[in-house]
Amino acid sequence: MTREELISQIRKKKSFLCVGLDPEWDRIPQHLLEKDDPVFEFNKAIIDATRDLCVAYKPNLAFYESMGLKGWSSLEKTLAYIPSEHFTIADAKRGDIGNTSRLYARAFFETLDFDAITVAPYMGSDSVLPFLEFEDKWVILLALTSNAGSRDFQMQPTQTGEPLFSEVMRKAQEWGSPKNLMFVVGATHPSKLAEVRQLAPDHFFLVPGVGAQGGDLQAVMNYGMNADCGLLVNSSRGIIFAGNGEDFAEKAREAAAGVQLEMAKKIS
Amino acid sequence: MTREELISQIRKKKSFLCVGLDPEWDRIPQHLLEKDDPVFEFNKAIIDATRDLCVAYKPNLAFYESMGLKGWSSLEKTLAYIPSEHFTIADAKRGDIGNTSRLYARAFFETLDFDAITVAPYMGSDSVLPFLEFEDKWVILLALTSNAGSRDFQMQPTQTGEPLFSEVMRKAQEWGSPKNLMFVVGATHPSKLAEVRQLAPDHFFLVPGVGAQGGDLQAVMNYGMNADCGLLVNSSRGIIFAGNGEDFAEKAREAAAGVQLEMAKKIS
Repeated sequence: MTREELISQIRKKKSFLCVGLDPEWDRIPQHLLEKDDPVFEFNKAIIDATRDLCVAYKPNLAFYESMGLKGWSSLEKTLAYIPSEHFTIADAKRGDIGNTSRLYARAFFETLDFDAITVAPYMGSDSVLPFLEFEDKWVILLALTSNAGSRDFQMQPTQTGEPLFSEVMRKAQEWGSPKNLMFVVGATHPSKLAEVRQLAPDHFFLVPGVGAQGGDLQAVMNYGMNADCGLLVNSSRGIIFAGNGEDFAEKAREAAAGVQLEMAKKIS
Repeated sequence: MTREELISQIRKKKSFLCVGLDPEWDRIPQHLLEKDDPVFEFNKAIIDATRDLCVAYKPNLAFYESMGLKGWSSLEKTLAYIPSEHFTIADAKRGDIGNTSRLYARAFFETLDFDAITVAPYMGSDSVLPFLEFEDKWVILLALTSNAGSRDFQMQPTQTGEPLFSEVMRKAQEWGSPKNLMFVVGATHPSKLAEVRQLAPDHFFLVPGVGAQGGDLQAVMNYGMNADCGLLVNSSRGIIFAGNGEDFAEKAREAAAGVQLEMAKKIS
């Protein structure tokens, strides 16, 4: 998907919501467990209930890998079910030496046909560049993540006095452009968002951490938006596990609608 | 596997060789392609040919994921085939927020029963700690990798004047011990190995980059060994693709035997 197509979807739906498809086995509603593929049935119902309210879906690969072969099968079926108008993100946090990153890129961009993949920056340029060679496909590079451990290295100052995440964002802009590179910036650091926005004025940010992790949507919108919106705000548990009974999909829709309503106020 | 068991295997076999099971599809010998599962048949032959010469096997997950469902099936069969005396490493370079890292840990330590997994440090403590909670299982943390991109962030000085990889090694030793934590230190930085060894005198290092990537085994042994050996030296392409005809397994054995012979001279 191109940048223009993504922005057009955001304007049309008045939403920049990304729904995280992270189906924790223990939280899948009881009545689905007797189905042939409970994970796919769960995702399918969530997608049907939220597709007009969100512009993106983001399965975190850990939830599927932890189920082995069955998990990969559920993931493939889920991908095939997501409407083509939605931006799809493989939350995989991969990154390896060049020839190996190239294989991951083929796995996620060709075999599974995701629009984007999250990538870890620690191994540097040749671990990231292979993901940037695919037309209309995106790298979403970890910059400042939403977890407490972001303080250990990402926020530590480098010799220039700038924190490591700033160096990552600065250097990565030599590798990719606002047309194929986004950054992960956690909603749990609202005070940093304005600063981070200055580092990359035109790039989209994928913002996790709203909801279950405690991030504040209003602060994210106030400090993080740019003229093209420039945000994809992810919510996983807050939406997909809003309910846990037979009405779980309706509850998910209500939760997503609540977020979309707040977003609509900010999109002209 | 415990540290003592690993050291005992190294002494017994006079080898600290790790064979990287990275079956690039395009390099699998022609005559295997007609089999039902060419990747497993290839791995099986490599294992049969090298098992007495090496102490560890390391499949890089990218090679399997890029083949989708079939790849996962080949990986499961390969794991089941590796003798229990071998230390098994999932070269996965994972790392995510806490509850998600926990799922990856279960996937690799419980579902697939690997002894160790490579982990990326960028997300900090709570992304690494869940992998350290499993008895006799290991984290192998990326410190100084073998690729050119290691210069982008890992070797950049932090405010203390020390490079980032030193900070990673220092902090990680607050999380794990020589009994459950190793570090990845690339063979392509032989001049740094002595320095890195001082940072973590008792920890094992997993050293990739010998062979195809140009690292020098003698330098690695001279600068990297400690009293317990303290090294697992990985070779992938240099061994498994030493030949590409019907005698590929014999060629792999010859290549592995050459490396083991050099290693034996250093182990008493």
